[in-house]
Amino acid sequence: MAFRSMEWREEGTLRLLDQRKLPSQKIYLELNTVEAVAEAIRTMAVRGAPAIADAAAYGLALAAVHSRAEDLAALKEELLCAEQLLRASRPTAVNLFWAMDRMHRVIAAAQSLEELRGQVLAEAHAIAQEDAETNRRIAAYGAALIPDPACVIHHCNTGSLATFDYGTALGIIRMAHEQGKRVRVLVDETRPRLQGARLTTWELLEYGIPHTLIVDGASGFYMDQGGVDLCLVGADRIAANGDTANKIGTYNLAVVAKAHGVPFYVAAPLSTIDLQTPTGEDIPVEERSAAEITMIEGIPIAPEGAVAANPAFDITPAAYITAFITECGVIKPPFAENLRRAKEASCDVYPT
Amino acid sequence: MAFRSMEWREEGTLRLLDQRKLPSQKIYLELNTVEAVAEAIRTMAVRGAPAIADAAAYGLALAAVHSRAEDLAALKEELLCAEQLLRASRPTAVNLFWAMDRMHRVIAAAQSLEELRGQVLAEAHAIAQEDAETNRRIAAYGAALIPDPACVIHHCNTGSLATFDYGTALGIIRMAHEQGKRVRVLVDETRPRLQGARLTTWELLEYGIPHTLIVDGASGFYMDQGGVDLCLVGADRIAANGDTANKIGTYNLAVVAKAHGVPFYVAAPLSTIDLQTPTGEDIPVEERSAAEITMIEGIPIAPEGAVAANPAFDITPAAYITAFITECGVIKPPFAENLRRAKEASCDVYPT
Repeated sequence: MAFRSMEWREEGTLRLLDQRKLPSQKIYLELNTVEAVAEAIRTMAVRGAPAIADAAAYGLALAAVHSRAEDLAALKEELLCAEQLLRASRPTAVNLFWAMDRMHRVIAAAQSLEELRGQVLAEAHAIAQEDAETNRRIAAYGAALIPDPACVIHHCNTGSLATFDYGTALGIIRMAHEQGKRVRVLVDETRPRLQGARLTTWELLEYGIPHTLIVDGASGFYMDQGGVDLCLVGADRIAANGDTANKIGTYNLAVVAKAHGVPFYVAAPLSTIDLQTPTGEDIPVEERSAAEITMIEGIPIAPEGAVAANPAFDITPAAYITAFITECGVIKPPFAENLRRAKEASCDVYPT
Repeated sequence: MAFRSMEWREEGTLRLLDQRKLPSQKIYLELNTVEAVAEAIRTMAVRGAPAIADAAAYGLALAAVHSRAEDLAALKEELLCAEQLLRASRPTAVNLFWAMDRMHRVIAAAQSLEELRGQVLAEAHAIAQEDAETNRRIAAYGAALIPDPACVIHHCNTGSLATFDYGTALGIIRMAHEQGKRVRVLVDETRPRLQGARLTTWELLEYGIPHTLIVDGASGFYMDQGGVDLCLVGADRIAANGDTANKIGTYNLAVVAKAHGVPFYVAAPLSTIDLQTPTGEDIPVEERSAAEITMIEGIPIAPEGAVAANPAFDITPAAYITAFITECGVIKPPFAENLRRAKEASCDVYPT
């Protein structure tokens, strides 16, 4: 493949594909500090719940590798500060917090300075590698649900760019395509940041998968014509009852899908399931700058003085979701029970 | 008011506010030929179903005023050619065809060259003036439906820019505001051409009406929070059974509104009701250039080679519409019966 969302360099650098510049420019950022990683997450140079988690884990690795701390306690303190900085970078996707929890356990357990340095980097590598492997398992379970031929509506970007590799919802589409199924994707452009237009079409062109870019408001028009087989999206946080936070516009798509009897699948790793969050009402929704709506490429598209609101995510109630596609199988309702079972037992007992 | 969508000048010029340049530039086009008017409609320098009808009527007036025809038959032939040109400029909004029918009757009935010249201009003025008066009657009926305070979701642009004056759905909001009701508007930005962001916020700022610009995909997020009282949109064509063609994204909004029990009103003059079109399936939906989606302000936002589809309208089935607000009152279901009655009886018997 001609791109990687991120790459760890031996000299202690995180090489990050700057997703704000795609598709017109393919620029790699070379990050050496945890502050630079937190800024890259905040400004969405890297985005997508799994990719944020991976980048944050590598952010801690950068802090560990470049630290001048001379004893274990000093390094632990630095890393716990860095962890707090990363936790504050974006509020909605839970994978970030899950990754920070994992890193925190490693930091807390380390017994020597050298061990700590090494284990922080090793854990970051493990998180990233597991992300890529998880996605192939999600893709295998999901591809089995894709008919042949199939027309899929996809929202936002959930591909290799949104993960360490391969992708979640887009990984499913990719695997179905690799299996020889005739899959066509209707790509929601995904306002305001246009991840569909900028990133998903770019990936689909790379993989040679037929697609048609549409405005977010056109999904019902195509469903009404009868040719849409399913909707497939990712997730930023799945509450214990199945309510799901994902990119703004997901909820409208789910409501319209239900009205047409079109199955609506959410593809995500188990790390996206947050049993500590009882329902969607408990998920914090990030409000981003109004300028993401009033300007495009630095050019104003609304008059001076116009007021805009920019919730970056919405909550799709569990009742609108047909099933969750995870690395441990397809989780069907009742979600409260089955999400807990999958999460607690991991892949030992799921799927049945 | 600081702007007019169009204005007839005594010297025989149609002065048209170029809506493609708003809000950054306020440029008036000075049109002297029917070809220029057809081009302005096709390229959306003027848009909005009623405004298209008015501009097209004035297009025939331009043809009549500037014609060098020396006898009645020659002028009639020129005008009938001009009429065909205008009819071909945009396919979906029926007001254009309604206006052309009116003009056609005037052309056919004229008995002398001078009478024809004068009557074509007089009929164009009549169509435009009636549009403005009609809108104030729509607004009066509609404003009575707006609670105080109210939060209204509005799609596309239906204001003074979309009509000769005052507007349809936006006219209702304006009149409610003038009546002292505390109306707040959630403005769908309306991709791909961003009529909400560019035009509706511009008008609302002009009128001092509180508003918040949102992406089209966010309407469900706000309805779910419980603060939305109604949706209010215009129409490009209303079929005999009540199925309604309007700007792409309208159907998604209607489906999401129904799922939340939010009333969904369509504001339009009776000229938008097309009894010759039995259902929405019979309405031709204009497909516009993919570049309207893949580029903004001339800047590509999708990669080279990405395929896009751009249906300019969608069809909202009658079952999603709470009522039509017309100059002859509020038309409730059963629509097939009541639309016919309103249309055939005009305002003589409606409302009961």
